[in-house]
Amino acid sequence: MSFDADIITLFPELFPGPLGASVIGRGLAENLWSLRTHQLREFASDKHRTVDDTPAGGGPGMVLRADVLARAIDHVSPETDTRPRLLMSPRGEPLTQNLVREFAGEAGLVIVCGRFEGVDQRVIDSRNLREVSIGDYVLAGGEVAAMVLLEAVVRLLPGVLGKAESHADESHESGLLEYPHYTRPAIFEGQTIPDVLTSGDHGKVDDWRQSESEKLTRLRRPDLWAKRHKD
Amino acid sequence: MSFDADIITLFPELFPGPLGASVIGRGLAENLWSLRTHQLREFASDKHRTVDDTPAGGGPGMVLRADVLARAIDHVSPETDTRPRLLMSPRGEPLTQNLVREFAGEAGLVIVCGRFEGVDQRVIDSRNLREVSIGDYVLAGGEVAAMVLLEAVVRLLPGVLGKAESHADESHESGLLEYPHYTRPAIFEGQTIPDVLTSGDHGKVDDWRQSESEKLTRLRRPDLWAKRHKD
Repeated sequence: MSFDADIITLFPELFPGPLGASVIGRGLAENLWSLRTHQLREFASDKHRTVDDTPAGGGPGMVLRADVLARAIDHVSPETDTRPRLLMSPRGEPLTQNLVREFAGEAGLVIVCGRFEGVDQRVIDSRNLREVSIGDYVLAGGEVAAMVLLEAVVRLLPGVLGKAESHADESHESGLLEYPHYTRPAIFEGQTIPDVLTSGDHGKVDDWRQSESEKLTRLRRPDLWAKRHKD
Repeated sequence: MSFDADIITLFPELFPGPLGASVIGRGLAENLWSLRTHQLREFASDKHRTVDDTPAGGGPGMVLRADVLARAIDHVSPETDTRPRLLMSPRGEPLTQNLVREFAGEAGLVIVCGRFEGVDQRVIDSRNLREVSIGDYVLAGGEVAAMVLLEAVVRLLPGVLGKAESHADESHESGLLEYPHYTRPAIFEGQTIPDVLTSGDHGKVDDWRQSESEKLTRLRRPDLWAKRHKD
């Protein structure tokens, strides 16, 4: 069973891009997931292939037309398609590792990449687009956001990460930030590796890592720490 | 005056990728900013060009070596370089539009893209790497995260966005999510555009947009709403 991603974008040539590299790209080559892109302009109805128009009520920027985007969505994802339809948007629900896990359990995703000032609200409503935001900042378009979301989701698909690339200890998998890492050389510019890590005492190593994770989370992310203790 | 970005990565071929498209790519072509990539393997000292080793204390995955990464950083960013040195990492300080604005005021950025399980803590400490996270989820590596950060920062550099692409009303610029947009056609599948937007009364349009922004922020992002009222 594959995970099928469809992307509606004005820049299909940017894909797979980073999604073609490393374990994510290997998974693509091995058909553990699939990626199809769709050029939004192909769904325009005029000879200039217009996809946008000025905002009703005035203001800067351009807005993606509801009718053009609706045609693209209906082509890519007919009513019988059970996959979530996402719109990458800074107004959306924040992407978290929990949401990434939820998406990884789906049959795939249909992702609309916004551009310009925004997307006509009527197509968001009528096509039930779920707005998702990768963070509280503004991008030039939804393409890199879609890459981020897919990279995070594809990592979790069966067979994509090898045993050597386990993800149990990662930051955000446990609600804690990850503890500090060390590797050879034993001494780097006079700095040694903490003794406990070279002690061979696995229990002590685990305790140290847990305690460092908690310390770092309290210090850097009091918001995560509070959430963890509320749940 | 240009904004100079240097990227240290195991996948230099992924750049500029999405950063070569749209207004961001146009800015690159017009030398409003510059981008150089550096292959980390070129700073390894053995014939296999090894950059990683097993974690001290055991556990899955591999850790980027302090000595190899330090050599790369020292080559790219000597002590006299005043640009911030960032490490893209899920343990980092969350990227926000405020932080994006701060970075856009710098002479540029040096960005290390992590891979594998993590980076030896001693090089983070000794080279004063500022860990930045684009969100609370786990990626396969720092490359798409670096693209996200640079796209957000470059958007704000002088000359990159035209007048038609103003950013004052965007989500996160004002601490509020953006109001809904509408454009032609006037009727889409029976749905009309809200009357106020076609009234020609600019004061009423502004009031409606402000009120919709506030409503949406309260509903979707009570965390942002609370922060806005605390500041």
